[in-house]
Amino acid sequence: MGDGMAATGRGRITIRDVAGRAGVSAATVSRVLSGKYPVPPATRTRVLRAARALDYVANPHARALVGGGRKMVAVVVRQVTNPFYAQVAEGVEAEATAHGLLCLVGSTGGDPQREMEFVQLMREEGASVVILAGGVVEDDAYRERVAHYAHALDAAGSRLVLCGRPSPDPGLPALVVVFDNEAGARAITSHLISTGHRRIVFLGGLPGNTALDARVTGYRAALAAHGLPAESAQIVDCGLGRAAGHRAMTELLKETREFTAVFAGDDMVAAGALRAISDAGLRVPDDISLVGYNDIPLAQDFNPPLTTVHTPAEQLGRAAVRLALRDPEETAETRHVLGTHIVVRDSVSPPPSARAQ
Amino acid sequence: MGDGMAATGRGRITIRDVAGRAGVSAATVSRVLSGKYPVPPATRTRVLRAARALDYVANPHARALVGGGRKMVAVVVRQVTNPFYAQVAEGVEAEATAHGLLCLVGSTGGDPQREMEFVQLMREEGASVVILAGGVVEDDAYRERVAHYAHALDAAGSRLVLCGRPSPDPGLPALVVVFDNEAGARAITSHLISTGHRRIVFLGGLPGNTALDARVTGYRAALAAHGLPAESAQIVDCGLGRAAGHRAMTELLKETREFTAVFAGDDMVAAGALRAISDAGLRVPDDISLVGYNDIPLAQDFNPPLTTVHTPAEQLGRAAVRLALRDPEETAETRHVLGTHIVVRDSVSPPPSARAQ
Repeated sequence: MGDGMAATGRGRITIRDVAGRAGVSAATVSRVLSGKYPVPPATRTRVLRAARALDYVANPHARALVGGGRKMVAVVVRQVTNPFYAQVAEGVEAEATAHGLLCLVGSTGGDPQREMEFVQLMREEGASVVILAGGVVEDDAYRERVAHYAHALDAAGSRLVLCGRPSPDPGLPALVVVFDNEAGARAITSHLISTGHRRIVFLGGLPGNTALDARVTGYRAALAAHGLPAESAQIVDCGLGRAAGHRAMTELLKETREFTAVFAGDDMVAAGALRAISDAGLRVPDDISLVGYNDIPLAQDFNPPLTTVHTPAEQLGRAAVRLALRDPEETAETRHVLGTHIVVRDSVSPPPSARAQ
Repeated sequence: MGDGMAATGRGRITIRDVAGRAGVSAATVSRVLSGKYPVPPATRTRVLRAARALDYVANPHARALVGGGRKMVAVVVRQVTNPFYAQVAEGVEAEATAHGLLCLVGSTGGDPQREMEFVQLMREEGASVVILAGGVVEDDAYRERVAHYAHALDAAGSRLVLCGRPSPDPGLPALVVVFDNEAGARAITSHLISTGHRRIVFLGGLPGNTALDARVTGYRAALAAHGLPAESAQIVDCGLGRAAGHRAMTELLKETREFTAVFAGDDMVAAGALRAISDAGLRVPDDISLVGYNDIPLAQDFNPPLTTVHTPAEQLGRAAVRLALRDPEETAETRHVLGTHIVVRDSVSPPPSARAQ
């Protein structure tokens, strides 16, 4: 998998060949080619001469070598039609524009192969910052892939930012900007509990996904904190998206209904669940209370307006760019956590039993 | 403005220099460098040798010259957080992926300068297809810019597709894929009229914008077709977006209310208008009927679910890629029009006066 990204391989002239011929370190070659760091003119000339002699210009670094290379920022998301990702991308774009940088958005549909191709392309283009956004399944393949990206981008003078996902190793040359998924889930679950709900379904689990697992953890923590038994937790692993929410909620409503509230894994799941509840002739919040996650701009236009967790999507994108463009000498801090808060609208009321009493 | 895009300028070695040295036409050099058209091997060798001798490799064409250049498709939109644009981008991405191409999304915030930078970057990268999506103000600057893009991309072996916007000149090497904005607006206005409405406000005009002007034309045509006087038309030029819709509707409700229905320029304007109507203590559709435009996925989740015009956003993106990748010899047709249809939900009812009678 890594072959395409490696600086070596397939008989290509590598940065090491240039370094050897110029009598400098590979790091120095990288500094010259990136054009971002001061290098003594004589060294610079020697490196460029060696690169040219070896036809290293025929390498993807060509643009950097010839002093071209438009400065840009790239953000890679799963899906642009997901309003949360669109907002992260818009934040990245706003901050990039403010710094006079062009912003490119790539979307992967969750395919690691496409993610890799984007990162490789952006590395070849000399993007200043490459941002990978959104929760992931943190398995060995992910760890290996990200370690690979981090080193390859670092060598090319780019910065990798993991946005809303963890770094598999704090020692990697990568910044991490996340929001507190667990605290957000704990807060909104507590809101449901304090309104009187005791049986709350979590709809939208995605086992192994870092973002969703953290929400489930927060949900369980809130139940425990209020003295509710662990068995009262009910998690439906239907994944995300409006269609998934609609389907799962429809199924759930066919069973004997013990729950009085639903915590949807995100606002799109909540949109689908809302429709399923209404299709079943039930009302939110009179019959079932419902909350979401993310506070997408249209959540306030749902019927009823959705109580949800506001996640700082746009700030996440802005922070990713701002922190990546900071002088790395300035601070050693590589992990940044943004806060969340709940937004109370009209989709929660006390459970019917509590109102009857 | 055009300087950066031109093949000549600033003392750089140009395609003409290479052509002169190789003894071929500039078009032949372009064909060799794009790598997309068959060229006799001897000619190819002569061109590559001339390019190398002149160090034309130090030109943005470098990637194509060295046989690199990942095949990709680029789509440029105004704003990724606009669900309509996000769906167009998703359609482009789906079709690109089906063809094994990478898809990059650029967003301009409506800034022609950023649009130009994207197009230039994508030309340098040898993108197979460059798609510009969304309505525009068709002024001289636009006409000049697009003519420039079309010729520059064509010379680089890329195809330009104008998606939901007109070509300033049918002779330009560009494809056009649009949907029938006027017919959609006529249909939804007729729906309001046949439900009994006589005073309908068009909320969301953007004078000069091709997409919105076509909707206003369809709106006026429907009024005329039903024998309503031209003075019954009321157009509020508040532009697009939820905030604009909210603000304009709030203002409108402060005046003596003669209208019984509102045709919002798009669904986001409708979302803002809905909120303003509800904030004023009025109900849709009991007090005011409301329709939108685009049928974004969440329009069905509004309160009430929105009656709107379904525009083929995803197909627009898909068609743009599919048509651009077709062999140009295959068909001379460069303009394609996709249909729209209205989706009737719950935001329209007869006006209060009709119900009282």
